[in-house]
Amino acid sequence: MSQHQITSETVARTIARVREQAPRVHVITNSVAEAFTANLLLAAGAVPSMTSSAEEVADFVSGAGALTVNLGTLDAARRVGIETAIDMAKEGEIPFVLDPVMADRSPGRCAFALEIARARPSVLRGNPGEIDSLCRARDLEPLPGALAVALRSVVAVTGTTDHVTDGHRVVEIANGHALLSRVTATGCAGAALTAACRAVEADPILAAVTALVWMGVAAEQAARLAAAPGGFAVGLIDRIASLREVDVQAEARIEVRA
Amino acid sequence: MSQHQITSETVARTIARVREQAPRVHVITNSVAEAFTANLLLAAGAVPSMTSSAEEVADFVSGAGALTVNLGTLDAARRVGIETAIDMAKEGEIPFVLDPVMADRSPGRCAFALEIARARPSVLRGNPGEIDSLCRARDLEPLPGALAVALRSVVAVTGTTDHVTDGHRVVEIANGHALLSRVTATGCAGAALTAACRAVEADPILAAVTALVWMGVAAEQAARLAAAPGGFAVGLIDRIASLREVDVQAEARIEVRA
Amino acid sequence: MSQHQITSETVARTIARVREQAPRVHVITNSVAEAFTANLLLAAGAVPSMTSSAEEVADFVSGAGALTVNLGTLDAARRVGIETAIDMAKEGEIPFVLDPVMADRSPGRCAFALEIARARPSVLRGNPGEIDSLCRARDLEPLPGALAVALRSVVAVTGTTDHVTDGHRVVEIANGHALLSRVTATGCAGAALTAACRAVEADPILAAVTALVWMGVAAEQAARLAAAPGGFAVGLIDRIASLREVDVQAEARIEVRA
Repeated sequence: MSQHQITSETVARTIARVREQAPRVHVITNSVAEAFTANLLLAAGAVPSMTSSAEEVADFVSGAGALTVNLGTLDAARRVGIETAIDMAKEGEIPFVLDPVMADRSPGRCAFALEIARARPSVLRGNPGEIDSLCRARDLEPLPGALAVALRSVVAVTGTTDHVTDGHRVVEIANGHALLSRVTATGCAGAALTAACRAVEADPILAAVTALVWMGVAAEQAARLAAAPGGFAVGLIDRIASLREVDVQAEARIEVRA
Repeated sequence: MSQHQITSETVARTIARVREQAPRVHVITNSVAEAFTANLLLAAGAVPSMTSSAEEVADFVSGAGALTVNLGTLDAARRVGIETAIDMAKEGEIPFVLDPVMADRSPGRCAFALEIARARPSVLRGNPGEIDSLCRARDLEPLPGALAVALRSVVAVTGTTDHVTDGHRVVEIANGHALLSRVTATGCAGAALTAACRAVEADPILAAVTALVWMGVAAEQAARLAAAPGGFAVGLIDRIASLREVDVQAEARIEVRA
Repeated sequence: MSQHQITSETVARTIARVREQAPRVHVITNSVAEAFTANLLLAAGAVPSMTSSAEEVADFVSGAGALTVNLGTLDAARRVGIETAIDMAKEGEIPFVLDPVMADRSPGRCAFALEIARARPSVLRGNPGEIDSLCRARDLEPLPGALAVALRSVVAVTGTTDHVTDGHRVVEIANGHALLSRVTATGCAGAALTAACRAVEADPILAAVTALVWMGVAAEQAARLAAAPGGFAVGLIDRIASLREVDVQAEARIEVRA
């Protein structure tokens, strides 16, 4: 795992590289989140592909810059599609991001998330309830760092302040806005954005931090112009596309600990 | 079935209670409608969950404040998911809203809608064609009141004037706007909003009326600012979130008959 | 195949007829594209229906004005649904549009696209990579005209300049905007718009050209007001609905060759 300095400059440079390199990101996500996630990736400059069919998912993961797996609508067919995608990702050394969405509401999802996590996601990203349920199911202390060490992955926990850790370094990001929780799929899209960043940046901590800053600063700017969730969602997509490097450098609120 | 007065004041209070209590509403709907429905529920202050997978739907219905079942994309897997959800709703005494979408275009959907209706939906909500097809399939007069009595449910019929009835009381709502029919999933989202209202209000008539007034007044306000369907859809979400109690009281057009 | 003159006047008249006749278009598409496609059809004045379930798709294709088949998320169930839909379209002489989306990324999709194409789509519409992969799989020169002749269909190739041909006539359309490629599902929605035009116009070349001009001029107008993809997508829907015949006649950039 290569390590870079985590600063507003390296974050801004990672955003610029997504725009320059336009990585293809294959995303397996629930149908609620698909269109918003695809539009956010396109706004970011990445190229989404989205089938979850077991018959063809390997063709799409192969050659992708990164993979995102979100556990929504976990029926038998979807499980097979996810497992096929993960196998191809391992075979092709394609980094993947795991979003264990609502693992805290369904024991089956929690168990499946841990099963997939054995394939070592580059970044596991969830909210506090989801991360806690995974820690508990692994008999760990409810700490992101403990989960990161156990899974040998970077863990990103979203919240008012986001935390990203590999169990050694911890980075906190204070960007974001309450309206993000009033629009569906912003978390899922954030996980896909993490994969887009990981496709162009080998350090998963820097990739995870970049996605959180990008989304967070874009949300802050969108909220200045739109006070309600409909207009905010439109503005968020616009800002993901138009956010300038100088804005990122001026407005990123990152703190590196340890 | 508890009964409350149906007035613009009780409607405004029901909206306020959705915002205060933030009920979780589980929604099984077609993939076309999912994102808009989730965003409308979030704008209303409710919390959507949306899996239809038979393997995990019971985990999600359990503990929800209400359930909405929409019959879009009715394949074998979806039928099992819906039946599992309805069983859990009955077991947990969780109220559910049934939206027999396009039952008039497919005999299979009509038959399945009536099968599910045996579990006594709190509110059955559809357009005139859908409600007529259910009446005919049950050999009833094509009257919402007859269907309501036969099913022992409240029936809500959407249209230029909406009708809500349990077969005894009838409430008419004259709010709404023609642009609602130019945006996909406004009906499906309205059924989910009905469930959100039912989660906080035991009287299904008041719940159904509240959802129709909330959507109708929000649509009228959104249409004042946006004359075309793209901007209208964004504004509708905004107005669902920002509609004030005084606006509801001033602009609700409710008539209680009998 | 009836043939009409392809001019900005006949294009404008075809748009007017979609708005007057409000054809129902059945669309089988991937879940990413469904909501945007439905909203674009509604904005155009058409009526979308969208189930892909094998159990009920025949009920929906029957009586539709046209069918669109998009090959996204091609699992076993979807294949059966598509085949059932195509059979019903042939039986009922309902014209269909085929969108071989990402056929160039998956050999399975390419083969299935050619299998379906035996049923003679009225219009086969794709981007250059998709059309090339179909030509190559059929051992043809990589030319839209060669594919059109081999399949006895009209082939529409989207790009900076769009080409529509039956192998004899060629029409080029220079309308459009780069932001179309920054919003998901604009291609899929364009194929569905082609079907809406084909439902009211027997000449598939005029139908395909009309959809490309309608979308292209709407995109140019939307891009004048919105420089980023979120607002552009909203404005595109608005312009599809509000585009006037005089604007189409003034702004259409059509060239008929041969």
